Amino acid sequence: MAGHRPAPQHRDPSDVPVEAVFAALADPVRLEIVRQLWASEDWSRVCGSFDVPVGKAGLSHHFAVLRDAGLIEQRDEGARRVNRVRRAEVDAAFPGLWQLVSRDAR
Amino acid sequence: MAGHRPAPQHRDPSDVPVEAVFAALADPVRLEIVRQLWASEDWSRVCGSFDVPVGKAGLSHHFAVLRDAGLIEQRDEGARRVNRVRRAEVDAAFPGLWQLVSRDAR
Repeated sequence: MAGHRPAPQHRDPSDVPVEAVFAALADPVRLEIVRQLWASEDWSRVCGSFDVPVGKAGLSHHFAVLRDAGLIEQRDEGARRVNRVRRAEVDAAFPGLWQLVSRDAR
Repeated sequence: MAGHRPAPQHRDPSDVPVEAVFAALADPVRLEIVRQLWASEDWSRVCGSFDVPVGKAGLSHHFAVLRDAGLIEQRDEGARRVNRVRRAEVDAAFPGLWQLVSRDAR
């Protein structure tokens, strides 16, 4: 049952070294998830809503890496797990990062 | 003989996807090399002058990754290979990146 999942663990961006942020965003699937979240309203996206070529287990791993890099936050709403990018906190810890991430893919 | 080495190959930053730049900087040794180059005058640093915990073969690999990500340029001056960061070109292709890289390590 989805309700039995442990709550997701997060790390604050101010506790993350910049090389771990770079590692999180070096993967094209994770970069695409973050870009789509950046363009979406907070908490509006469930985990299955991203257009990325990866299965459910792979997706869980990618979300865990993004949480641990301080880039996203997740919470459970009943059986749904919803997402947001940590716009303000990441901008304070890593000024310039969103400018790099949110521009169009080339 | 050092003079017999092939000239280093470079890629222009405008041809590099941002995820490849993130991958290049996800490694702490490469991040440190780029930071030290950022703080140095262009062409003033030979490859052996960086304070990083890696042997000669590993160092060659790291420099190749940094060249291929468009972040550094190398040229041979006799038996010496000297380096610079591509400040202006990288800033044009990836605005915000130097702000992230050049700040103090935490």
